[in-house]
Amino acid sequence: MEDKELKDLKEKVLEANLELYKSNLVFFTFGNVSGVNRERRLIAIKPSGVDYSNLNLENMVLVSLDGSLITQGFNPSSDTKTHLVLYNSFSEIGGVAHTHSRFATIMAQSHTPISCLGTTHADYFYGEIPCTDIISDKSIISDYEHETGILIKNTFSKKNIDYKQMKACLVASHGPFTWGKDPSEAVFTSEVLEEIAIQNFYTRLLNPEIKSMKNTLIDKHYLRKHGKNAYYGQ
Amino acid sequence: MEDKELKDLKEKVLEANLELYKSNLVFFTFGNVSGVNRERRLIAIKPSGVDYSNLNLENMVLVSLDGSLITQGFNPSSDTKTHLVLYNSFSEIGGVAHTHSRFATIMAQSHTPISCLGTTHADYFYGEIPCTDIISDKSIISDYEHETGILIKNTFSKKNIDYKQMKACLVASHGPFTWGKDPSEAVFTSEVLEEIAIQNFYTRLLNPEIKSMKNTLIDKHYLRKHGKNAYYGQ
Amino acid sequence: MEDKELKDLKEKVLEANLELYKSNLVFFTFGNVSGVNRERRLIAIKPSGVDYSNLNLENMVLVSLDGSLITQGFNPSSDTKTHLVLYNSFSEIGGVAHTHSRFATIMAQSHTPISCLGTTHADYFYGEIPCTDIISDKSIISDYEHETGILIKNTFSKKNIDYKQMKACLVASHGPFTWGKDPSEAVFTSEVLEEIAIQNFYTRLLNPEIKSMKNTLIDKHYLRKHGKNAYYGQ
Amino acid sequence: MEDKELKDLKEKVLEANLELYKSNLVFFTFGNVSGVNRERRLIAIKPSGVDYSNLNLENMVLVSLDGSLITQGFNPSSDTKTHLVLYNSFSEIGGVAHTHSRFATIMAQSHTPISCLGTTHADYFYGEIPCTDIISDKSIISDYEHETGILIKNTFSKKNIDYKQMKACLVASHGPFTWGKDPSEAVFTSEVLEEIAIQNFYTRLLNPEIKSMKNTLIDKHYLRKHGKNAYYGQ
Repeated sequence: MEDKELKDLKEKVLEANLELYKSNLVFFTFGNVSGVNRERRLIAIKPSGVDYSNLNLENMVLVSLDGSLITQGFNPSSDTKTHLVLYNSFSEIGGVAHTHSRFATIMAQSHTPISCLGTTHADYFYGEIPCTDIISDKSIISDYEHETGILIKNTFSKKNIDYKQMKACLVASHGPFTWGKDPSEAVFTSEVLEEIAIQNFYTRLLNPEIKSMKNTLIDKHYLRKHGKNAYYGQ
Repeated sequence: MEDKELKDLKEKVLEANLELYKSNLVFFTFGNVSGVNRERRLIAIKPSGVDYSNLNLENMVLVSLDGSLITQGFNPSSDTKTHLVLYNSFSEIGGVAHTHSRFATIMAQSHTPISCLGTTHADYFYGEIPCTDIISDKSIISDYEHETGILIKNTFSKKNIDYKQMKACLVASHGPFTWGKDPSEAVFTSEVLEEIAIQNFYTRLLNPEIKSMKNTLIDKHYLRKHGKNAYYGQ
Repeated sequence: MEDKELKDLKEKVLEANLELYKSNLVFFTFGNVSGVNRERRLIAIKPSGVDYSNLNLENMVLVSLDGSLITQGFNPSSDTKTHLVLYNSFSEIGGVAHTHSRFATIMAQSHTPISCLGTTHADYFYGEIPCTDIISDKSIISDYEHETGILIKNTFSKKNIDYKQMKACLVASHGPFTWGKDPSEAVFTSEVLEEIAIQNFYTRLLNPEIKSMKNTLIDKHYLRKHGKNAYYGQ
Repeated sequence: MEDKELKDLKEKVLEANLELYKSNLVFFTFGNVSGVNRERRLIAIKPSGVDYSNLNLENMVLVSLDGSLITQGFNPSSDTKTHLVLYNSFSEIGGVAHTHSRFATIMAQSHTPISCLGTTHADYFYGEIPCTDIISDKSIISDYEHETGILIKNTFSKKNIDYKQMKACLVASHGPFTWGKDPSEAVFTSEVLEEIAIQNFYTRLLNPEIKSMKNTLIDKHYLRKHGKNAYYGQ
């Protein structure tokens, strides 16, 4: 008999996957969400190749943080190794989401970071949303999904970005990964990311020379909501 | 026990906020509407950080026109000070709305006024819809939300625009504010603004050299609906 | 007591206006449809400034082809005189529709005819969908809505276009008028026009140098559906 | 009395046509799906000019692979000859779909193949989705719908493309044809194609110089799902 803690984790991950599905960020089975229990050192994640309409508590898959499969019967999402690298690298996140949402993917296909062009962006993401380099042939051939996670991790460390203030990364030629304190926030971040990507895309299209918004305004908007002395929306 | 006048005001503001929500101009909690009772010298406004699905008469917040909080328990929208400047500057408006609606925001992020390119625009807005300058660092740091209102007010006085014939302003790098004779008209103006912004955006994209429509045609369309001798739609 | 013939006409016009409303081609009250009874020499048209949700048989307005108001109580759509010119100029049309549908309006605002770029277009419109010149100041000032009709008529005669094979015209800086054998076909044409305008717009955006499709292919597609020896869809 | 095998085929074709209709890939009657029974050497296809709301088992049309009409009463879709060439050329396909879906059509009108710009594309299509040359006048005049099929077939043989790994082709100035192991997969391919066309279109718009994604990454994504050692989504 399974314990309550794992059931809770699976429930949160199931709900977050269904929320992702309702959000119109995914079409067909393009997307997955996971959640972690750090004390138990395991994650729950969407099974591979199962339609959203057939998701339930029984087919959520448990995998340990070192990659061993815990539950039987269903394979975890093929992107599981990417999720695992993110949990192991970003020690305080509780949920990860991956989509091919339209405009975040278009920006990723353009190898274009999402520069901060307005307060809508700064309300949620502290500065430019990074885009990785194109993954190397060596990484593709050796352990592709694991290396995709490493690519994200290295992008953050090279650019000195704080994953707590920047909960999204575009993987070049691929699409976005997002995260948050739990699976639900990871999905929420995917939804906000898509709207921000749309606004960024069209602003650039009209005005290709547009520069990032000035830092005082980025600071004001991000920090009034997320800083130590936050007062916005509280 | 609260009096009927204030209850009426709150009801109008509540309904207008719900109308805004249904309009798809806002996503998540990005948006707010207020209304004023000029005799009582107070406004009702959406509470800060409350989901649209939880809005009700009890959590609408009352604030006096000089900025003091009248009701207890909920904070007013973080943008309240901007609304107050508008009520104090534009003496005959009855409602104010703020959104981050997609294309109005994209135009604001591009620092681009919405020039009058067609009769659809001229049916509702008398000439170019202005965009403010970028807010100064001093204004950001001192009293940001109040200064945002001042920026709008100054844009209208510098350009000699009549707020009764131009019920919208883009705030550069931020998004639109709209107003009207009551909260409902402020929301209506936000909805029309978004469609006009879309049509303007795509017309420019196809034809970057496009000039404003000639004044005789602007006058004809605006004044046949809103002029002294209006005959359109009546 | 009103006779059956007029009731039938009003019913068709009412249904076509409601169909237009459901089509998402109009927002708010931006749009109107009329129908004609040529033997009685009168048209039925949407009343001016009435919400679509309040349209019914009682408020449909009858106007004679020479412009005199027949029914009492409601004013006809402000665009009535444009409709009348079309019925008087194009002797075999039975219905007229006017919208500010998004992309047809964007093309009109760009003063850009909709060139025939694909078979989807050629299945419905025989060649380039024309756009008028900008209306003259004299026409704006004298009898604007009537002159708008004259502008369409003159565009067709100057360019030698057959109104039976081209059931739409863009009015520069304004928007589209469409027609057909009855009010329902006029609305159908508005709906097809919008999709064709969208496809034309985006094709040009990607490929500004795109030329019209060759005539053999235009002929094939238009004539296999609408020519003397039509075999398509029959 | 009709046999069960043919009833099954008609049912699959009917369902696939209704699925196509629900997908928003077609507007009005622009679209058709067929399916084949190879042993019986016949196909079932949507009747010509019948509204989607009136489709049922009785009006599905049977046509032999050499083109003779088997059922009475309804004409087969005008595009039937194109379908027949595809079944006769691509010996293992079981279903064919044709739409004028918006962005696939826009790419076809631009005479632009859909280059592989991201992993979303490579998950479903192995490399660039081809676009035919413009059909010759001779082909238009002689046997247009048959020649359209020949054009697709020749495009695949000239470019040495495997129809099992590339289940779609754009016909220049016209629109897409897709196929699959059965009618349902042909429709699914049309749906994925439209999303891929959208992402490709907007990526090019932002970044006109964008190059195809590198082959190692195309191979990885396509082959992990569809190759001999596929592990993705299984």
